[in-house]
Parts: sequence; structure tokens; C-alpha cells
Amino acid sequence: MTQLRSWVSSANETGCDFPIQNLPYGVFEDGRGPRMGVAIGAFILDVGAIDHGLDPALFAEPSWNRVMAAGAGSWAALRARLTELLSEDCNRSAVEPFLVAQSDVRMLMPFTVTEFTDFYASRHHAENVGTMFRGAENALPPNWLSIPIGYSGRASSVVVSGTPVTRPWGQVKSPNDELPRFAPSTRFDLELELGAIVGQPSAGPVSVADADAMIFGYVLLNDWSARDIQAWEYQPLGPFQAKATATSISPWIVTRAALEPFRVPTPQRTRPLLPYLEEKGPMLYDIALEVGLTPDGGSETIISRTNYREQYYSAAQQLAHHTSSGCPMRVADLIGSGTISGPTKDSRGSLLELSWGGAEPLEIAPGQYRSFLEDGDTLTLRGAAIGDGYRIGFGACSGTILPARPAVSTGR
Amino acid sequence: MTQLRSWVSSANETGCDFPIQNLPYGVFEDGRGPRMGVAIGAFILDVGAIDHGLDPALFAEPSWNRVMAAGAGSWAALRARLTELLSEDCNRSAVEPFLVAQSDVRMLMPFTVTEFTDFYASRHHAENVGTMFRGAENALPPNWLSIPIGYSGRASSVVVSGTPVTRPWGQVKSPNDELPRFAPSTRFDLELELGAIVGQPSAGPVSVADADAMIFGYVLLNDWSARDIQAWEYQPLGPFQAKATATSISPWIVTRAALEPFRVPTPQRTRPLLPYLEEKGPMLYDIALEVGLTPDGGSETIISRTNYREQYYSAAQQLAHHTSSGCPMRVADLIGSGTISGPTKDSRGSLLELSWGGAEPLEIAPGQYRSFLEDGDTLTLRGAAIGDGYRIGFGACSGTILPARPAVSTGR
Repeated sequence: MTQLRSWVSSANETGCDFPIQNLPYGVFEDGRGPRMGVAIGAFILDVGAIDHGLDPALFAEPSWNRVMAAGAGSWAALRARLTELLSEDCNRSAVEPFLVAQSDVRMLMPFTVTEFTDFYASRHHAENVGTMFRGAENALPPNWLSIPIGYSGRASSVVVSGTPVTRPWGQVKSPNDELPRFAPSTRFDLELELGAIVGQPSAGPVSVADADAMIFGYVLLNDWSARDIQAWEYQPLGPFQAKATATSISPWIVTRAALEPFRVPTPQRTRPLLPYLEEKGPMLYDIALEVGLTPDGGSETIISRTNYREQYYSAAQQLAHHTSSGCPMRVADLIGSGTISGPTKDSRGSLLELSWGGAEPLEIAPGQYRSFLEDGDTLTLRGAAIGDGYRIGFGACSGTILPARPAVSTGR
Repeated sequence: MTQLRSWVSSANETGCDFPIQNLPYGVFEDGRGPRMGVAIGAFILDVGAIDHGLDPALFAEPSWNRVMAAGAGSWAALRARLTELLSEDCNRSAVEPFLVAQSDVRMLMPFTVTEFTDFYASRHHAENVGTMFRGAENALPPNWLSIPIGYSGRASSVVVSGTPVTRPWGQVKSPNDELPRFAPSTRFDLELELGAIVGQPSAGPVSVADADAMIFGYVLLNDWSARDIQAWEYQPLGPFQAKATATSISPWIVTRAALEPFRVPTPQRTRPLLPYLEEKGPMLYDIALEVGLTPDGGSETIISRTNYREQYYSAAQQLAHHTSSGCPMRVADLIGSGTISGPTKDSRGSLLELSWGGAEPLEIAPGQYRSFLEDGDTLTLRGAAIGDGYRIGFGACSGTILPARPAVSTGR
């Protein structure tokens, strides 16, 4: 089959994240107001301005929530229409006036997050963290091979790539301290994740297959985590303020449709899953991921390279489990995959793991080390599914650490 | 001071939950569309229909979210205006046509919940549950006397009083089982709580005093909990599906303004609090609470009587802690107090505690026992602050348990 190409020549270049096979959705601002767009090569097409074939009301607010709510028929129709309009053999004159250079815009949140749930679904990550927190004997919790473990997070703290992240304060207590102190976190960390976006609601338990069909698309996700706050607060009800400072997502929603050619199965099960979690087909994706760390004024070092296929549970399994008690899901719920760590040291998805809790600081440049994040550090996640002659890129998800603010006044 | 009275005579009756001193806000439906109302005696005043003095846009949608967002000045102005219009010496003709009998309406959700956070702030509850789950030696977690422990819950599952609650399925594992089963919960429980509603947003850490000023009002809250699902899933990241089936709230928002005369201080501290949690004044309220259980076809037994003043941490402290890492709060965030248990056996706020994990079933009628909830049981929470000649009542928060549905199909 001849490779599909676009009349937008930059979309056909080798290594381009946004070929015509991708068509991810975002919201951009170029000085003329925020609008909904689709990335193509080095450009963004202003989708609301063209003859897109859907109800114009779906584009009335700069957010993809309404298109998601419109359902799978609309998702397929829009993708088909955009593919047609941007393909090499289409007359470009109808839409070319509505292309905007990516270099001229600021990207905004692509959708309004309804609720955010984060999971814990990489076995390597769970074993690494479990070993550090509870010892090698108790690394994997007894339920881990049966349940896609998750917890509810904080939607209000989700921000788009490029938003600075202020180092949080919190209660911290060293093992040798008798009492906690309230202080800026000194073990502030990243978590490399993929976020699945729920595009259709549910009112009761759903199967894994139906859960998969509810997913609109995926983004890169960095769940910033204060390990010192987490260690003191997380028993018995789980992480809370350690994870509530910020969660960054990439500005482009890569649709499930674009990822179809890259499906791979979850790994062999160590323990059989209960029937409600069984998958009828491959539900993970082969997506190469990397994390770059750039110190203030320095140059970037790639500190981790891994792959989404390392996960033990898929987003569809996580979502099916999420509904198992009857929990209603809503349009634009965001489901974090959990930190994606691979089997090798250089494929770990957090500094906690990469520096083994600070015991083995990571050399990021000659003589320069990191155990956890320092003020001024910029973290950048990248990801792409690599096809035959093209790549489905996620773009970048970055954030720079700002110093902690002065302590809050204790009141009036 | 002569007691303030209303020309709505039922509001002046002894034992009435809704005297003129209360004026709680709700949303009602009487066949002519959902509307915003204030309870007065046995009636509801259709607030949007009268000369309320605020921007009519605040009443354009049947939800109190916009009034909350309008801020403390609007809250005070509306309360003053309603007090004036409903007081004994006011000409009733202007508003009497807009009274609707409570018996003629169905109550709806009073506001759209943005995000839901639940806490764990009764020391008696924490000690009871801790003893059962971890043994008396480890009853109170080491952080409990320093941190108002909380976790993010699920806003999508919050329902208004009167909504039936379907018994959930979930993964359960008895201590003697090697592997979990997927089955309907057999240890389904209530949690007697008070919910604080955040009326104003925050963008960074706030003090306890500022947190208190952000609170618009309070509702009764029942955080339905599947103890068998919880026991197997909650380590290490906290409760998830065990708490996601439903959370019921009472239909009337009792404002912070109405509760002002009932402020009481939190109890003596066993361990000094860190400065960011210090209270400059009394932040709890003296609110008598009770739980009634009515079996299908039977009559109600009060299974618990307790008081909100039993809490170790106030809602203002919980909210201040919630913002401590920089977590943004938004209008209509809901903050659960955590189960409110008193020191005596008959003041425990959950069946888990009342039946001591099922070891001591509770006799609810001669020869009729409960360890956990049975299908057809109706649970009703009630609460009131008792003033001199009047009571600030919360009305009722009730829900009936429906049998578990058939298991979900495992897919297509």
C-alpha cells in the first residue's frame, strides 16, 4: 500500500510527529482567541473554521469536550473528513487559509478534565517502589496481580504542558525525626505516564471491550509527586497532597483511531485474572516514551527511555475495573496509566526509581547529579508510536520547577 | 432579645427544621421544571421568582453553583433579603404566591459537585476502625494526630437523598481464601458524615481562617462503603471502588451563616499542631446527628446518635491542609468530614463500628439483627443545631439499598 501523504509538505517529513496518519486534537491561542485545532506537520488547522461536517455547536467553546460527548460516529466522521481534506490529492484551497504555524501559537488545555484517576499498573514500577517503601519481601502488594490498583486524584491540578510547577510545601518527617515539620518538599519527582481520556459516559459496570470503545484518545502525563510528603501521609488512605500540586499533560490528544495499528497485548499473566478483567484483544499500544531533564541554563539529558507496552494492565482494564462498583464515568474523565517503568535501570519512569530513593544519584552531565528535581529543572516527556514510514507522535509534555513560595500566613 | 419569627406559621412551630433562622438552599421540582428554593417551615420559597436583589443570571440554572461563585457579599445580601421578606412584620403579599408546599415537590441535587474529597477526622472512628483493621497497637496511624488525613473521592457518584443505592459488585477475599472472587458486597455499610461545600476558589495555600471563609455551607453526607471490597483493595493507595458506588447528600444546604451561633472549638490537642493548621477561633459546630435504619416493611430504629463536635479536625482545617501543597480548590468542591463517631458504642457512625466488624450484630428489633446493610434497608441521617427556641435542621438524607444487579457481561 502506498503511504498516505498530505499536501502539507512538513507532514511528510521523516521524524515528523504529526503526519496525516495522526491528526491529534488540541486548543491553540494565536492572539485571535482560543480555538480548536488539529496538528498537521508544522501547522495547526483551525477545525472550527472549515467545512468539517459536524454540528457547529460542537466547536462553540475552545475545548474538545463536546466533540467527545457527540460519540463515536462523530469521532469517525471528523477523522475521515480531516483525512480527506488534508490528503495529497485534495484541493488545498478550501482549508489552506485556516492553517496556523505551530511556532506562532500557545497551546492551551485541550479539554476540561472532569475527574482524574491515577493507576499503578507497571509491574516494574510497583516492584521498585514497593521494594523501597516496604522491602523486597513485600514489594508487590498481595492484591496487585488481581486488581488494577488506582486512586482518585485531583482534576483541579491538571495543567497543560508549559505551565510552570511550583515546588510544594507539606508535612515531612524523616525516620529519625520524632515529629513532622512543615517545609518545602526536597524529594520532588516526576512520573512518566500516559493519560487515557474517557469520551463517553457509563452508568453501571462495563466490560473491558466496552471500556476500550469509550476511550477517545491519549495524552502524555506527568504526575508530579512529592516523595517526602507522600511517605509521611499515604498510610492508611493513600497519596493526597503529595500528588495534588500539579499533573501536566501534553497539549495534543492522540486519538484511539490513530493508535489502532499499534495495538499489542498485555503480558502473560502470573495469576489468572477474574473474568470481568479479561481482554478479548490486544489493548496496550507500542508507544516509545522518553524523559528529558534540562537543568536551568544547561542542556537536556534523556534520563529514561521506556514503552507503554511494559504495562501489566491496559487503560481499558483500568476503566472496566473503575466502573465495577457502579461508579459512573463521565465525558472527559482522565485516567492516568501509572508510572511506566521498564525492566532495566535506564527505563524507569521516575527519579525515585532512577536514583533508588536518592541512594544512587543519577549523573545528568559530567559531575552533575540528580536524586530529585531541583529548582529550574525542566522535565520533558515525549512519545511516539513508530509506523512504517511515519510516526504517531504525542509532541512534548514539559514543565519547569519554580522555587517554593514563602509559607502561607497562619491567618487573621 | 425577642425571637425572630416568620409569617409562615409552620416555621415557628417547635421542632421545625426550617425556621427563619435557618433558610437553607435547595433545588426542587414540582412538575413545572427544576428551580432554586429556600426552605421555610413546611414550604419552599421559589427564590428565582421573587425580588431577591441579586443578578437574575445567578438563578438561570437550577443549581446553587452560581450564587456560590458570586461570593460572600452576595451570600450575605441574599440571606438578609430573605430574612426580611419572610419575617413576621413583612408584608407577605409580595412573596406568598411563590411558596410551594414541601410535600408537593421532589428535591434534586442542590448543586453540581465539582470534586469530592473525604476525610478521616473523628478520633473515635479512626481508633475503632484502626483497631479492627490493624490491631489495637496500631489503631491510630502515626500521622493521624498531625495531619487531617483525607483522600480524593468520586464526584460522579454523589447523589441526592432519596436516590436508591444498588449493592455493588467487587473483588473480595476472605482471609482464608487464596484468591479473590468477584461478587456482590456482603459488608455494605453507611458512614455518617457532614459535607462542607467550598463556595469560593483558591489558587494556592490558604490559612485556616481563610479556608473557613471559603465555606458556603454544610449538608448531611452518607459515604456508602463496601467494607469487604475496601479490605482487599485499600493497600497501598487507599479506598477506591469500595467508596465509588454512591455518596448521598441531604437536599438542603445549611449555610455557614445559619450555623454561626453554634461554633465550638476542636478538642484539646494530644500533640501540638503545626502552625499552618492552628485555629484562631472555634471552627466546629454543635450539631446533633442521628442515623435511622428501616428494614423493608419494618419500622425505623435509631442506631446511632452523635455530634459533629466530636471531630478532631474542623472542615476549615481540612480545607487548609487540602490547599497546603498548592492544590487549587474550586467552587462547589465537596469536603466530607469523615465518619463522625462519638466515644460511646451507641454513638458510632458506621455499622462496621456498631457491629464491631460483624462480631457483635446490632439488634434493631426484637430478634432482628444487622451486621451490615441488607437489601431493602433504608438509612436516614438527620441533624440539627439546637438553639434557644429554634433549631437549625438539616432535614433528612436517606437511601434505600437495592439488590445487586446481574454481573456485567465480559464483553463482545
